[in-house]
Amino acid sequence: MSAPRYARVDDAFVTALEAEIGAECVSRAPEALERHARDESDGLYFPPELVVQPRATEQVQALLRLCSERRVPVTPAGGRTGLSGGALCVHGGVALSLARMDRIVEIDERNFFCVVEAGVVTERLQEAVEARGLFYPPDPASRGSCTIGGNIAENAGGPRAVKYGVTADWVRGLACVLADGTLLRTGGKLRKDVTGYDLTHLIVGSEGTLAVVTRAWLRLTTRPTAFRTALVPFASAEAAVALVPAIAHAGLDPAAIEFMERAALEAACAQLGVRVGHDEAQAYLLIELDGTDEARLDREIERLGELCLERGALDVWLALEPGRRRELWALRRAMGEAVKRLSAYREEDTVVPRARLAEALAAVGRITARHGVRAITYGHAGDGNIHVNVLQGELDPERWATVSRTVSREIFEAIVALGGTITGEHGVGCVQKDNLPIALSRASLALQRRLKTAFDPGWILNPGKLFDPE
Amino acid sequence: MSAPRYARVDDAFVTALEAEIGAECVSRAPEALERHARDESDGLYFPPELVVQPRATEQVQALLRLCSERRVPVTPAGGRTGLSGGALCVHGGVALSLARMDRIVEIDERNFFCVVEAGVVTERLQEAVEARGLFYPPDPASRGSCTIGGNIAENAGGPRAVKYGVTADWVRGLACVLADGTLLRTGGKLRKDVTGYDLTHLIVGSEGTLAVVTRAWLRLTTRPTAFRTALVPFASAEAAVALVPAIAHAGLDPAAIEFMERAALEAACAQLGVRVGHDEAQAYLLIELDGTDEARLDREIERLGELCLERGALDVWLALEPGRRRELWALRRAMGEAVKRLSAYREEDTVVPRARLAEALAAVGRITARHGVRAITYGHAGDGNIHVNVLQGELDPERWATVSRTVSREIFEAIVALGGTITGEHGVGCVQKDNLPIALSRASLALQRRLKTAFDPGWILNPGKLFDPE
Repeated sequence: MSAPRYARVDDAFVTALEAEIGAECVSRAPEALERHARDESDGLYFPPELVVQPRATEQVQALLRLCSERRVPVTPAGGRTGLSGGALCVHGGVALSLARMDRIVEIDERNFFCVVEAGVVTERLQEAVEARGLFYPPDPASRGSCTIGGNIAENAGGPRAVKYGVTADWVRGLACVLADGTLLRTGGKLRKDVTGYDLTHLIVGSEGTLAVVTRAWLRLTTRPTAFRTALVPFASAEAAVALVPAIAHAGLDPAAIEFMERAALEAACAQLGVRVGHDEAQAYLLIELDGTDEARLDREIERLGELCLERGALDVWLALEPGRRRELWALRRAMGEAVKRLSAYREEDTVVPRARLAEALAAVGRITARHGVRAITYGHAGDGNIHVNVLQGELDPERWATVSRTVSREIFEAIVALGGTITGEHGVGCVQKDNLPIALSRASLALQRRLKTAFDPGWILNPGKLFDPE
Repeated sequence: MSAPRYARVDDAFVTALEAEIGAECVSRAPEALERHARDESDGLYFPPELVVQPRATEQVQALLRLCSERRVPVTPAGGRTGLSGGALCVHGGVALSLARMDRIVEIDERNFFCVVEAGVVTERLQEAVEARGLFYPPDPASRGSCTIGGNIAENAGGPRAVKYGVTADWVRGLACVLADGTLLRTGGKLRKDVTGYDLTHLIVGSEGTLAVVTRAWLRLTTRPTAFRTALVPFASAEAAVALVPAIAHAGLDPAAIEFMERAALEAACAQLGVRVGHDEAQAYLLIELDGTDEARLDREIERLGELCLERGALDVWLALEPGRRRELWALRRAMGEAVKRLSAYREEDTVVPRARLAEALAAVGRITARHGVRAITYGHAGDGNIHVNVLQGELDPERWATVSRTVSREIFEAIVALGGTITGEHGVGCVQKDNLPIALSRASLALQRRLKTAFDPGWILNPGKLFDPE
């Protein structure tokens, strides 16, 4: 198909919409448009023409029916904490905020399931299920403000993915609205289901381009109650990441294996005003074991500590008190913001097979050196998922625009050559759209466009993300 | 689209195909056609017109190109152990056997991954990775003869799914051939990947209707080396299944929680010529804990045993010797064949939220009693996935044909009303196609047909399975 031409939001559209769903859900107020013009991606600004904040699925259906008829683009938005511009209206149209659909519908303790609306803030859900002795593991850094709907759209990860998997691993059913307003239900409180195609997991991670998720059926597990957390300094980044396969071979199954290079930890320490670090360390691993059996964790952390020291760690610092553990995680979570304060930057969300992390870091070092820029790296080493933050530093904006694009492309080419890919948990959105052909073949992209058309023939759902029509 | 008209396999087609891929891969011999006319589904017989057994992906591509051009249907086949007719050529055409593409391409110990061709027999892969201290968990009952390609097509499960998940949870990348002969690569040795739509998991479980999988990238884990296995008799099926949520709430995470009613165990005992059973028991759970830490397993099996007795188990029999453990699992695996020997039957692969198993079994009892037939049930209680075998018994074939269809439909309606679905691991194939609308809405089926068309515009891949074009 050729590039779609979209209609603008005009008074007639607003009048028709308000008649359908009520005026209180619809806003053209400048502050509402402004608030929905940005997410956490650096330097993007796309104000919508209209903000719609429904309270019920039926209102989402009415909105999409109208938008389909009139060819008005719709971009679903959750907490707007995304890093790839997924919630931004790059073609204008309607920002569809799911924020008011924020009910925890059910916590089913007998089946280890919960049912939630898309707008529930992730941390709120976690606290609610933990209060009942249950556990919803996915923990993106933004969990205090991101939503389950956004997590589903981007297939969010986080540190605990190394043990517990990503959002997709916990989603077992969806209620969503298709582009023409049709309601689609998939899955349910089921641990096995091969009844037809797995639409659930096609929609998870589809960045709001296939359907608007309004409700989710999420699997839960038992809440871990005991933790052993260690910060482990290494003389080199290579030595740090070399430990990752060794941990797995030792039969240890940490809930997190986070990598941070020296500069990343220093930036976070400066931001939070704390002092943590080893004089000779160039990199650190933050490793956490969790479970319910204190004695077992004691044995495991001892084995882990020995393994680290055998493999060249400079030291092993255990967070023996809960306050210390919280501090280490606060540092880890502050890292993104802290690096951002050092300089404007471009963040790349690389993934490689985890035994190839050292090669990936070396490639990043070579490429940035060649272009005279600096990168700060940290991330989820246990999953081979490293965030590479290329800093603008002293470069003028024009030169930065060129250099950062080139550096990103070269990094992605090196990562893909190592068997990796260009995004592990942030999504493609509009930020990585131009780099998608580095990772995916023409055949794959052509097929994905056909799937998009099968869901959304008018390409009205979140246009400008992932790929454009050919 | 309207129902496609398919071409027959004629001499010109065979000549053209042999010129492309060589005559040694192509057979019209009656014994080859006959061999591919059946799988393990009861009473189905669909001989293909041609059997093709390629050795390389390029040959699969050439075949599909030709079949697309000439509108000849192609049905991929693995070990032909399926229970829903997935590998049968219900519209004639080509049986595409992947049996000769059976290389274990790589076992990557550092990354905990393997790369295998579609025709590798599951058990052979398991043995190969276990010899290196690694583990590929999915274990369908047919693992001695089923193939990884077939497991992927059907998203096969097995007893260990309750702890380790199903096939989909271990597949991270695919090489497959689209209907027009295009090669598609998805994923890789990656633990996280949100680069575009998740084609991998759309193709897993699609029953060979979307693409022909030729190679898979499979995640591995650490091999468990210690096991504690218990057979637990109960006075009623309700008491047995009521234990399932209690085990999870106790924080225990067994590798298997299998349910079998008295008649199922008796049939298996008769088949294998062993005596196992409790006079007062109407049902049993077969529970296995696994891990690497013997002391921990000792503590856990003790807690599990206490829990069973508190919850009304008649006894707890531990399989203290490896030989005893093997015997219990041999009984469990013989169950399907053993029940088959009692009578012709129709097997339904029901799933419900696992805390609703008692209601599901009660519904099955009511429905079969009302129609004067008998059902024997067993299966994966930990996943809420129970196989319901409705026996023909003394009914004449004509009456059986009507009654079995009615009983199946009523059972599925009851299961869906409990929040369940009509197949957990066997697939829809041609066996459950007519029942699909009980579980899926018109909107879902319409969307799935559009996805099918986006992959395979001529509907040449495994036609007659899942659903027909409208």
